[in-house]
Amino acid sequence: MAETKYDVLGIGNAIFDVLVRTDEGFLKRHGMTKGGMALIDEARALAIYGDMGQDSGTPVEMSGGSAANTIVGIASLGARTAFIGKVKDDQIGRLYSHDIKAANVAFGTAPATGGPATGCSYILVTPDGERTMNTYLGAAQELTPADIDPAEIAASAIVYLEGYLWDPKNAKDAFLKASTIAHDAGRQVALTLSDAFCVDRYRGEFVDLMRGGTVDLIFANEAELQSLYQTSDFDTALAQLRNDVKLGVVTRSEKGCVVVTKDGVTAVSAFPIESLVDTTGAGDLFAAGFLFGLVRGAGYEHCGRLGALAAAEVIQHIGARPQLSLKELAKQNGLPV
Amino acid sequence: MAETKYDVLGIGNAIFDVLVRTDEGFLKRHGMTKGGMALIDEARALAIYGDMGQDSGTPVEMSGGSAANTIVGIASLGARTAFIGKVKDDQIGRLYSHDIKAANVAFGTAPATGGPATGCSYILVTPDGERTMNTYLGAAQELTPADIDPAEIAASAIVYLEGYLWDPKNAKDAFLKASTIAHDAGRQVALTLSDAFCVDRYRGEFVDLMRGGTVDLIFANEAELQSLYQTSDFDTALAQLRNDVKLGVVTRSEKGCVVVTKDGVTAVSAFPIESLVDTTGAGDLFAAGFLFGLVRGAGYEHCGRLGALAAAEVIQHIGARPQLSLKELAKQNGLPV
Repeated sequence: MAETKYDVLGIGNAIFDVLVRTDEGFLKRHGMTKGGMALIDEARALAIYGDMGQDSGTPVEMSGGSAANTIVGIASLGARTAFIGKVKDDQIGRLYSHDIKAANVAFGTAPATGGPATGCSYILVTPDGERTMNTYLGAAQELTPADIDPAEIAASAIVYLEGYLWDPKNAKDAFLKASTIAHDAGRQVALTLSDAFCVDRYRGEFVDLMRGGTVDLIFANEAELQSLYQTSDFDTALAQLRNDVKLGVVTRSEKGCVVVTKDGVTAVSAFPIESLVDTTGAGDLFAAGFLFGLVRGAGYEHCGRLGALAAAEVIQHIGARPQLSLKELAKQNGLPV
Repeated sequence: MAETKYDVLGIGNAIFDVLVRTDEGFLKRHGMTKGGMALIDEARALAIYGDMGQDSGTPVEMSGGSAANTIVGIASLGARTAFIGKVKDDQIGRLYSHDIKAANVAFGTAPATGGPATGCSYILVTPDGERTMNTYLGAAQELTPADIDPAEIAASAIVYLEGYLWDPKNAKDAFLKASTIAHDAGRQVALTLSDAFCVDRYRGEFVDLMRGGTVDLIFANEAELQSLYQTSDFDTALAQLRNDVKLGVVTRSEKGCVVVTKDGVTAVSAFPIESLVDTTGAGDLFAAGFLFGLVRGAGYEHCGRLGALAAAEVIQHIGARPQLSLKELAKQNGLPV
């Protein structure tokens, strides 16, 4: 097999996060489903944004996007990474491009020069640390197969995709193109199911991706797994996952994670934290740690521990990207990287 | 005296903050003086920004500006506030305008339609929690006396100004115009000295403002006070301050604050914290709590305790604006507002 240029290349919606702490009343007032990701149009974005900050904190803005967060986490651990995602050539888009490149991630997707503004997610963080997202896709809608560079994909050990790519109209085709190129080059393809409501929108297609071999590795949390197989019984859903995919990784919040293959099941505990501030990015950073372990050839238990460590860092502050060097953090915690 | 429309109206540089955790090496590499605020041009801003995030965290962006942070804090405590400051009519400027209005602050300064972009401060937070600021003034340079609405000033119980206003070329005139209008209407004028290096640039003028009665109330930290009177002896500097201004409030980090008038000295201890994350905004939020107490007619000790509480909130997370409702926080801590 040819040499790799990147350990992990991610493809996802490029989304700028606007985070604010709020109370439960805000969610109720705007009819939001706590813990989920809802797609919103510009009118609703303005209504939510206009009300954000009232009687609570000042919004904090930062680059986000699920797969992008994961890729930044992998880079922070010290691996070679790239990201493909669409921003507009506007001020926010330039912040976004800066941030991901400053995190040592190769990022060359041409920004949209017209059309909607760079996508934004309005993220409400309630006192219990749970986050509720409202995403305006904006320029992320403009990602097409033309943005997928075959040479970059073929040179990446793992291609990592987010389920949210099923929402913009042409991103799905970009996803499938990338998977085909990756497999033709003998690479692995990973998918995160992203969100239980997203699974609900595309359940049949996601199951087909797994059974048809378009993806080799699935990340899911309990809610997404149960939504995928439409069962409230965790063990039933887990057994189905073992049948449907080569490698399945299911995160269970404070209960840690479970890694399943046809050969076995490995459970790994969560990493202890001092205080839960904001769950935004927990799953994204778990995937970062796990994938980093995987590309370094670690066993599943070690991969799970790296995932737990990275997730623990990100949920102890506002925002979905690490504030500390994960490489240093891993060293300090006896997880050599 | 006429009824007031606002309890406190602030005038300051409207600055968007870009914060990142970094190590001491970053400061050394860029020749920065730790703990200070340096003014930078666009070329240096790009050089610093381009290097931010490397091997550390993702930048976090949010609205800032010293006086603006104070005003947002006062609003969060429940008082009526307004802010005057200049942004450009660009994407960042619109975020800025949104954030301050969402914090219940009246903000009507017309944005600049041409000229430099909305001002940004690149803030490096080292592992000890200290912040080092590099500020590109941008559109803040465009603030002029024409932006000062006499009716708004005359209707504010306290006008609060930042020493940083001495840096943009026309803001000083706006400052002096506001002070004259305020005093003519029987109102109080407060000034924060902002930064020891800023004091170093304008020492003589700041002393004249105090002695000439242009300002009635001074906020300073130890370094600023010592810079003002060019002495390393705290007591000597404090004695001079008592002579020069009606009311002086000196913050001393974990040692609390000292309030001085011609009649006496009141010392108030700092508020205990769990962990120091980022000192950005500590002085701004202290001033918020103190001024809030003042407009509510509280004694200096109570004012100092409110200041200490607000400062404690802001130094336990990244960013210079409160993430929690300070009104709720004050209630929870037995400081009724």
